Amino acid sequence: MKTKAATAKGTRDFNALEIARRNYITGVIKSVFEKYGFSPIETPTFENSETLMGKYGEEGDRLIFKILNSGDFLKDVPADLLHEKQSLKVTKHISEKALRYDLTVPFARYVVQHRNEIELPFKRYQIQPVWRADRPQKGRFREFYQCDADVVGSKSLWQEVELVEIYAEVFQRLELNGTTIKINNRKILAGIAELIGAADRLVEFTVVLDKLDKIGEDGVIAELKERGFEQASIDAALPIIRLTGSFEEKLQHLDVLFADIAIGKEGVSEIRTILNRVDLNAFPAVALGLDLTLARGLNYYTGTIMEVAAPAEVGIGSIGGAGRYDDLTGIFGMPGISGVGLSFGLDRIYLALEALNLFSDSLNGTPEFLVLNYGVQEAEYAMQVCRRLRKSGKTVDFYPDAAKIQKQLQYASKRGFAKVVLCGSSEMEKQEVSIKDMNSGTQVQVSILDL
Amino acid sequence: MKTKAATAKGTRDFNALEIARRNYITGVIKSVFEKYGFSPIETPTFENSETLMGKYGEEGDRLIFKILNSGDFLKDVPADLLHEKQSLKVTKHISEKALRYDLTVPFARYVVQHRNEIELPFKRYQIQPVWRADRPQKGRFREFYQCDADVVGSKSLWQEVELVEIYAEVFQRLELNGTTIKINNRKILAGIAELIGAADRLVEFTVVLDKLDKIGEDGVIAELKERGFEQASIDAALPIIRLTGSFEEKLQHLDVLFADIAIGKEGVSEIRTILNRVDLNAFPAVALGLDLTLARGLNYYTGTIMEVAAPAEVGIGSIGGAGRYDDLTGIFGMPGISGVGLSFGLDRIYLALEALNLFSDSLNGTPEFLVLNYGVQEAEYAMQVCRRLRKSGKTVDFYPDAAKIQKQLQYASKRGFAKVVLCGSSEMEKQEVSIKDMNSGTQVQVSILDL
Repeated sequence: MKTKAATAKGTRDFNALEIARRNYITGVIKSVFEKYGFSPIETPTFENSETLMGKYGEEGDRLIFKILNSGDFLKDVPADLLHEKQSLKVTKHISEKALRYDLTVPFARYVVQHRNEIELPFKRYQIQPVWRADRPQKGRFREFYQCDADVVGSKSLWQEVELVEIYAEVFQRLELNGTTIKINNRKILAGIAELIGAADRLVEFTVVLDKLDKIGEDGVIAELKERGFEQASIDAALPIIRLTGSFEEKLQHLDVLFADIAIGKEGVSEIRTILNRVDLNAFPAVALGLDLTLARGLNYYTGTIMEVAAPAEVGIGSIGGAGRYDDLTGIFGMPGISGVGLSFGLDRIYLALEALNLFSDSLNGTPEFLVLNYGVQEAEYAMQVCRRLRKSGKTVDFYPDAAKIQKQLQYASKRGFAKVVLCGSSEMEKQEVSIKDMNSGTQVQVSILDL
Repeated sequence: MKTKAATAKGTRDFNALEIARRNYITGVIKSVFEKYGFSPIETPTFENSETLMGKYGEEGDRLIFKILNSGDFLKDVPADLLHEKQSLKVTKHISEKALRYDLTVPFARYVVQHRNEIELPFKRYQIQPVWRADRPQKGRFREFYQCDADVVGSKSLWQEVELVEIYAEVFQRLELNGTTIKINNRKILAGIAELIGAADRLVEFTVVLDKLDKIGEDGVIAELKERGFEQASIDAALPIIRLTGSFEEKLQHLDVLFADIAIGKEGVSEIRTILNRVDLNAFPAVALGLDLTLARGLNYYTGTIMEVAAPAEVGIGSIGGAGRYDDLTGIFGMPGISGVGLSFGLDRIYLALEALNLFSDSLNGTPEFLVLNYGVQEAEYAMQVCRRLRKSGKTVDFYPDAAKIQKQLQYASKRGFAKVVLCGSSEMEKQEVSIKDMNSGTQVQVSILDL
């Protein structure tokens, strides 16, 4: 029976061009990670279910891909569960393993499992695929790469300084001009909550505040009312809503607002320390800005929060996120391991570079040279040519059959070789080759000794 | 509840040292693949079950990891199958996807799915993990990497010539002196079968012949008798058993033996062509030899068969295998796509290099420099030092906290940094740093401007 040739829903093949472009991005990221002292780790594709289940909330549990046990997996399942078709309860009887859902939980597991082999502070990066049983849609896949760097075992704000500079250096090297690193601090958000007397509705408040650019001050106030924020809260929020000026000016306003709010003061102090220490002079493509509406990851981030926005003109939004957390490994029985980490959104960075035409044409995934095949005798000579070119480090494909030269040239053109090497009998006689530049169409004669 | 921190059975974490060493091996392989005109592809971790099931035999089907459907997966399973706990039959109702079992079937699927985008001949390489629900044991894992290169769409023997040279160049560059590429041809095996009048027992015959070194001619003859080979077959086999001499001498003997056996002649002719065309002068680490006992992959290989043996002293056996096949994609409804491919055994190559101490000490997965932290003031200066070193491309870790210098030095020593940079107040005053070589213990003063 014929099998249909199709990838599974929500997954992708990558061809040579896509891999060359992806490797360009991950190559830049890896080299920056390593310059800043991070070393790679890799964890397995699947983990024991107990490692993953219950770590991402109910929705997460549902989206984790479970692996069916091997062999007679139904043998020990209670008959009544099967009879009642209790899928959820049956799951844990027939599945002991699950696919990696993110890189953070496996990293936590790694730190605990290898605690006697690693030294704190421990700086690791990890670039591996993860899997989520989400409904696939444009730009959202069931298999996608995450790209994380974390340092655990130190509370020093120097870590944040380095993370900001890592972001800046990566996007500078990718030439993504107009990238913005937005920074905030959970403690500032807590301070605002205290300030407006609505500690429990902080996230909702930031969501509304985030619309300031679009709907203006009046719009924000109206929406806050609509959502039932008390007038006293809204009045107290006005200085926040009206906050303008440079990074340092905003911090000075917050100094005043947080005069009696310890937690808010602490947040401002942390951000100011980072701001004073960061040096972005070498990275003009990238700006750092305070964004009080930034409220991502509030169920685990405890200090600094960052998000990176792609240049506005590409309309892609966030291409990275970062934050500081207090407890990475408590779930594995090792409390008190705090840290800070960042991640890059590979797929979106790819889209941004593509939209801005920032991939070099040389990243085309095709070897540089195609050596043509003129027949049995000439092929022996052509192979010598291949060997010489390869010895000098060139990437070289040899057309294996003595097909019509026209056909071979078409092949070269379709695959996008930069250069085609002709070594027919006349070239062979003179111990030369003709090298044709496929872009310009020009052709030069070169002695085989000069290759 | 505390979760146990443990990898799933048969899977491995990789630390920075292991990744550096693995990347060294795959880096050499990739660069050689690309020099020889191969381009990478990547396929998803999981495929639709129908893509994989039935392609690897019954044992293969059993060893494929299946992914449980999401949601209420039991809903449409026939009640009687559940009641009778028919695990095997239930599987296809509750699982539509499965983990990649090898790279060949996904490659075949890729070729057919993308047939309108690719040009033949199509040369691809692929280095990705695969998964098998095997019982884990020493050196055998449930998650391991395969590393394949194939060219499809050409019957030219130049492909085999290039594959031999790829093997030779890779093992030369890995400095694995004493590597042997063994070559055979299915058509020679078919010729031998015809010669001894035992076409159906060819593999069994080669298994016995393979013991020649250990048990001698008499032993081989005795075992053939024991296994019920007829005396006439054994008599006919004697010239094969007694085959000695150089590669070319063996071929000349076979010329005589196959005087009236067309298929055998064809096999000899193919091997001779390859032998005459291959040039291994640049690769003294590697030898090429004819091995008539080589009989791997006979259910798909139709011509050349190769296997690479690690240097005998490491006792690791095969570190690569290759062969030519007639029909890659027939199962997906696209007949007539023939090709030839090779693979590298990454885990075993790793073990061989480790056993022979061939990994460079510099592949240690640790940044080169650790910059120490002497306190708040000095740290600002230390960060300038970090930035300068990084700007010159160095990998640099900064100790984030002002811990006791003794503790920081211990950290440097345990993690294996090559160099430690000391910038205390006296260095800061002179705008210098002290760089300590951790191996020799020597220390030099350098101006910050000269970093």
